[in-house]
Amino acid sequence: MSSALRSLVEGVRGAQRDVAQASGDKRTAVLGRLASLLEARSGALLEANRRDLEEASDVSAVLRARLGLTEAKLQGLVDSVRQIAAMPDPLGRELRATALDQGLELRQVTSPIGVVLIIFESRPDAVIQIGSLIVRSGNGVVMKGGREATYSNRALIQCLRDALEHEGLSPDAVAGVEGREAVSELLEASDVIDLVIPRGSNELVRSIQQNTRIPVLGHADGICHVYLDSNASLEKAMTVVLDSKTGYPSACNAVETLLVHREFLPRLPWLGQKLRNTGVELRADEKSRLVLQEHGVLSTPARAEDSGHEFGELVLAIRAVDGLDEAIAHIHRFGSGHTDAIVTEDRERAEAFLRQVDSASVFHNASTRFADGFRYGLGAEVGISTGRIHARGPVGVEGLLTSRWLLRGDGQAAGDYGPGKKALLHTALS
Amino acid sequence: MSSALRSLVEGVRGAQRDVAQASGDKRTAVLGRLASLLEARSGALLEANRRDLEEASDVSAVLRARLGLTEAKLQGLVDSVRQIAAMPDPLGRELRATALDQGLELRQVTSPIGVVLIIFESRPDAVIQIGSLIVRSGNGVVMKGGREATYSNRALIQCLRDALEHEGLSPDAVAGVEGREAVSELLEASDVIDLVIPRGSNELVRSIQQNTRIPVLGHADGICHVYLDSNASLEKAMTVVLDSKTGYPSACNAVETLLVHREFLPRLPWLGQKLRNTGVELRADEKSRLVLQEHGVLSTPARAEDSGHEFGELVLAIRAVDGLDEAIAHIHRFGSGHTDAIVTEDRERAEAFLRQVDSASVFHNASTRFADGFRYGLGAEVGISTGRIHARGPVGVEGLLTSRWLLRGDGQAAGDYGPGKKALLHTALS
Repeated sequence: MSSALRSLVEGVRGAQRDVAQASGDKRTAVLGRLASLLEARSGALLEANRRDLEEASDVSAVLRARLGLTEAKLQGLVDSVRQIAAMPDPLGRELRATALDQGLELRQVTSPIGVVLIIFESRPDAVIQIGSLIVRSGNGVVMKGGREATYSNRALIQCLRDALEHEGLSPDAVAGVEGREAVSELLEASDVIDLVIPRGSNELVRSIQQNTRIPVLGHADGICHVYLDSNASLEKAMTVVLDSKTGYPSACNAVETLLVHREFLPRLPWLGQKLRNTGVELRADEKSRLVLQEHGVLSTPARAEDSGHEFGELVLAIRAVDGLDEAIAHIHRFGSGHTDAIVTEDRERAEAFLRQVDSASVFHNASTRFADGFRYGLGAEVGISTGRIHARGPVGVEGLLTSRWLLRGDGQAAGDYGPGKKALLHTALS
Repeated sequence: MSSALRSLVEGVRGAQRDVAQASGDKRTAVLGRLASLLEARSGALLEANRRDLEEASDVSAVLRARLGLTEAKLQGLVDSVRQIAAMPDPLGRELRATALDQGLELRQVTSPIGVVLIIFESRPDAVIQIGSLIVRSGNGVVMKGGREATYSNRALIQCLRDALEHEGLSPDAVAGVEGREAVSELLEASDVIDLVIPRGSNELVRSIQQNTRIPVLGHADGICHVYLDSNASLEKAMTVVLDSKTGYPSACNAVETLLVHREFLPRLPWLGQKLRNTGVELRADEKSRLVLQEHGVLSTPARAEDSGHEFGELVLAIRAVDGLDEAIAHIHRFGSGHTDAIVTEDRERAEAFLRQVDSASVFHNASTRFADGFRYGLGAEVGISTGRIHARGPVGVEGLLTSRWLLRGDGQAAGDYGPGKKALLHTALS
């Protein structure tokens, strides 16, 4: 890593430690200040964003929509910063307290992870959404946004830095970097960066996962399944599948493959017709296609590669299965461990599905679209993780925390405890 | 990865899922069976170990001691397996329960991580120590032990596999592999292995950390500090420093560098003499060496590379500092974030140290040697982690767990909730 970049990251670490040991009230004040700055500078922020939009005149409408800031979007950001300011301080929370002996008390308390590298595409709002969670949790951050949002990102990062400085903390806990070379170098710096959070396309996430040994919080794929059991209610099946597929087809928690118990097949056409009416293309395997055809519901033949494919649009693969075991085997083979649901009126089979399916979120009679930090009530969402280490599923601010063990004694030696000597008490402290 | 190795790991995953969904009582029975098998086969186990010792006739006495099994060691293993069998089932424990709406209940429950790769050196007892925690937590494991313990490892792994099979579970949840090539291939298989736990030398751990993108639970270095404040009690300083240095000098939680407030220096010779009397070599910086010399306490001049060095033997670096800030800066620069302690009678400074030092374990007036899973009361120790992700410090069985989110509904669609529609309740369920 270049020495300039290394000293920037070390500066983030040093400043982060100051932010972490400041009081919770101080961090709350920084967030309050951030909200005010965003309001006071709304004109300049929109102007910076206008420059980005001008230079990005040749990009798609979808990208422009992501890139563009509006007064309404800014106000939404201000509101979310104020909400995060109102969150209880997540630092120093006691996770465990044990008396090892009289006057020898062990406490495990929440602490910030340290320095987080955030790499995101197009959406400049991510600077504030994640930046405010970073401040709330006493972490430091190195941010690398998309080139197309350069002016917006600079102006928003400056708001974060100024908010820290106005409250007497070092602005260096938040740093922005630009250029692809910087990212490659940072991804190799596992000694100074503790966690990487990518926000963007599957390709972005996958490429980061494959190019770093730093832990990555995120998910490349959202290949979700809904299994309609023999005993499923047609009404619930319709509600769950329609919402799961059409609520927001490009979301990671949208369903991609519908698994249908062969005994449910006779009722499939009603659901199929409803999906067709909302514009969903059905990619059906032979058995289900036959039933759909009989009832005049249009479908295209499923191809082998449709299993485990994230369509991200109004396309749904449909596959008939012989029962629960085959459905679960399919999910384990083709799923991405994100979110999978069963629709059934049979409680025992529902519980077997909940117990056996090895995914971050597993649902009974509910839309896969519920897999979301805000819907889960986590207060804010850092991301959704399909990893099994550290945090899994929708991740709130606790994804930015680790813990430390504090032991307060009176001069004790470990060698005085053990077989034939004093015994450790290990009593829980309330 | 060779197809044979891949199918072995996939077999572990499949069998692990069966172990995970079996009842807690079933896993308890497997552990009870394991203890009985170890007792019943003690003759054969000691014989296998004797063969290893014969073939390793040219190795050091230290290594032979680690490698050797005795009846007493075996009985210790049997006792620890029975203790782990008596642990409450760690799976399916509710971490959070929230009603999102009437009839829409979200629960976060503990689940096994999946497939763990354990790489260890010399000590065959690790097969049973970690293997029993793996079974307790419903995980699967691929074990690679040292070549010098080949026969012992094979016999012990067979006990684990037979215990699973005798209770009607697939033995394939526990697999042993041999040969260095297998390790290189496994370390690249981040798609099928969820966590790597290395147990052995710093070099082993470092080489694994540098050669895999799979998360690693462990620590390469244990560079621990004790800081003697101006206000330290000489008696407590003596107890804490002696125990921290001489209790088990090669342990990762032994102290390596003593930081001494310049106002404590006049009392340093008493402590220095006591350390000398127990055979500790003192590597003192100029200021502290001068004071030691005046009182006839022998020391050698500290070299620059002594800061941040893990001696692992009866050697202690000593360095005078101007106060708390310099001590903490030194710890952050040279420490490994394992365990650091302050000795002081000043409660405010103690609390500042506990708040500011960014290490897994931070102590006041207690020996660094307390940093240990058994001493912390974790019931068993998977390892000590200096990483900040997933688990930090001494790690018990929870280091082998992740969580899943289970949502039980009645056909709800996510699109029915939101601004202008139904509100999510987010009330905690007891």
